[in-house]
Amino acid sequence: MKVLVLGGDGFCGWPTSLHLSQCGHEVLIVDNFARREADVELGAESLTPIETLDVRRAVWQELTGREIGFERLDVAADYEALAELLASYRPDTVVHFAEQRAAPYSMKSAWHKRYTVNNNINATHNLLAALVDTGVDSHVVHLGTMGVYGYTAAGVTIPEGYLRVRMANDDGEDVEQEILYPTNPGSVYHMTKSQDQLLFAFYNRNDEVRVTDLHQGIVWGTQTPETERDERLINRFDYDGDYGTVLNRFLMEAAIGHPLTVHGTGGQTRAFIHIRDSVRCIQLAVENPPEHGQRVRIFNQMTETHRLIDLAQLVSRLTGAEIDFVENPRVEAAENDLRVHNRQFLELGLNPTTLEEGLLREIADIAARYAHRCDRDKIPCRSLWRRAAEPATAT
Amino acid sequence: MKVLVLGGDGFCGWPTSLHLSQCGHEVLIVDNFARREADVELGAESLTPIETLDVRRAVWQELTGREIGFERLDVAADYEALAELLASYRPDTVVHFAEQRAAPYSMKSAWHKRYTVNNNINATHNLLAALVDTGVDSHVVHLGTMGVYGYTAAGVTIPEGYLRVRMANDDGEDVEQEILYPTNPGSVYHMTKSQDQLLFAFYNRNDEVRVTDLHQGIVWGTQTPETERDERLINRFDYDGDYGTVLNRFLMEAAIGHPLTVHGTGGQTRAFIHIRDSVRCIQLAVENPPEHGQRVRIFNQMTETHRLIDLAQLVSRLTGAEIDFVENPRVEAAENDLRVHNRQFLELGLNPTTLEEGLLREIADIAARYAHRCDRDKIPCRSLWRRAAEPATAT
Repeated sequence: MKVLVLGGDGFCGWPTSLHLSQCGHEVLIVDNFARREADVELGAESLTPIETLDVRRAVWQELTGREIGFERLDVAADYEALAELLASYRPDTVVHFAEQRAAPYSMKSAWHKRYTVNNNINATHNLLAALVDTGVDSHVVHLGTMGVYGYTAAGVTIPEGYLRVRMANDDGEDVEQEILYPTNPGSVYHMTKSQDQLLFAFYNRNDEVRVTDLHQGIVWGTQTPETERDERLINRFDYDGDYGTVLNRFLMEAAIGHPLTVHGTGGQTRAFIHIRDSVRCIQLAVENPPEHGQRVRIFNQMTETHRLIDLAQLVSRLTGAEIDFVENPRVEAAENDLRVHNRQFLELGLNPTTLEEGLLREIADIAARYAHRCDRDKIPCRSLWRRAAEPATAT
Repeated sequence: MKVLVLGGDGFCGWPTSLHLSQCGHEVLIVDNFARREADVELGAESLTPIETLDVRRAVWQELTGREIGFERLDVAADYEALAELLASYRPDTVVHFAEQRAAPYSMKSAWHKRYTVNNNINATHNLLAALVDTGVDSHVVHLGTMGVYGYTAAGVTIPEGYLRVRMANDDGEDVEQEILYPTNPGSVYHMTKSQDQLLFAFYNRNDEVRVTDLHQGIVWGTQTPETERDERLINRFDYDGDYGTVLNRFLMEAAIGHPLTVHGTGGQTRAFIHIRDSVRCIQLAVENPPEHGQRVRIFNQMTETHRLIDLAQLVSRLTGAEIDFVENPRVEAAENDLRVHNRQFLELGLNPTTLEEGLLREIADIAARYAHRCDRDKIPCRSLWRRAAEPATAT
């Protein structure tokens, strides 16, 4: 298949591009390097030394003979260029990663909130409007988040996107309806993914655009079989307070002798997936497109759930690191229950990589290998979900 | 109260600004004249000859001694100016009309879709982010639409924003939950209002921004007691295929001897409200703000429902005009049932102006008075919700 990967230079986008190329698909990456620019803005860097996209692509071609194309453009801003590219390349599938993807980053300031909303909504909408405008019938595979569900249901295993509910009609009889699972996003970033769902539902219903929306859990790990083939293909490893995800952060902290920073009580339960499974899930979605006329297909892209404190204790046992409880910057319940269905990917053949010590050691090894590149000042999360309270006046 | 009216030069904004001023509130209008620019773009004009905003404000001050302030700025684009205005003016209430408000306009082309999404989402989000950023504790009164509900519930009277539903938990027991009413928007315009709901819910929960969201029906009528006081205060009357609303269009068509253009079978049921009631509802919302910590308050701002064919027949009886059935450009069911709760406004004291011949005659008189200004070419709706089918190949 011809696959256009929007945001193909990022943490999920790069290993996905390699994996799809490895599977024999023709891959064309679109990126505006916003993620690398955020590194510059934040004075942070991937712990792993990532190469430029040109070097990455050249190394892949040298190793495998497979070419990965590249167009630099901003999907949220350069509509005409995007529409022209779709019309000329006519991809079978567009994998859409071209969104600002960090919750803490989205809450740093009014500018960051506005950037996230403007970028994410316009990126998704430009893609959908351009597909309709050009008449190109690509299947859109979008990376969403488990965070749109918001962990609200009491004792209900979260279904894959849609929920059957009952309500009383005017005659007091029960009516059953299937609805998009009600969202309860916890950050501006998560909110944009809830808004994306409305965009997909509308363009699917009005114009029959075929969409697979992947509600992904927190990704752990950094390497895939493809990125491991050469150090110059290595994937990003973010450990900073904005972009670092929790389990990778713990392993990084352990590697440099920093206490594991647990926000709040650590009683929050989250859904997880290893980056290897993430790229396989995307491959499965790409290779199994929905039918024309089918509603938006939603998959939960996660393999297991864990309480954060349990993960911290696991890493602590493995490495001897101490645990440090710090204030939770988020507005959220201290503890939550979370159970999630992921049948659809299992039925398509996903064989989950679950959390086990071997893989954790692999990541700890990477963290240790590049520990000299770590800037300890970047570890704390400095985003506050709400304005800090005024300091008390001295009396 | 000090009230900032974003979009205060438009069809709802102008009579609202006058009405709030008449009620003794201090009114400051913000507008970027986007609606007047759309007239230029479309080569269309208000049937009624509207004055510039400067003249309108001067006449009002001359008549009443009341001053209405004005700042020209684009809420969706000029974030810094908006934040400065909020910080200096510190309004008790911000009435937010600053959105592109026509469904057909939002579907004309990729450009119009993108303009509507970009403008509406960024306008709402800039306002919310600026309130949090500046720490100004204004009550936001937002004009939403009944169209977010999407008329999907079978035999269920549409509640005011929230719906109690039941679902089975993992133990097979019933769990009850109150959710935002599931949306099913029928155009890009309506979709942006669904996305607005998510913005309000998030900023309300995260930052305790107080919001009243008004789900308004189709407005009919053009004049209010305030706009009638001087011809130079007259309100817009849109009859064109993009911005004209259905009942006003029928009356206009009758006035110029054009058949009443009914889309499809006319079996669509819609919710309606007279512009006089619309401005009173906004006054009631402004003067009865929600408590701090209260969730987003949603009112259905409508007074009655009608089938379009019944309205056409009523206007036909009144004026002798013929009815012409034309193809429906929208993707929607030919017929729908619609029952709507509007208890909250009735409890706050709204005394509904319902459809009766006297008021219809008043509008027909305005249509007749300015019929010479009508451009008949602008009457048909030329937006297609979906791309036209390819013409069949001759064989």
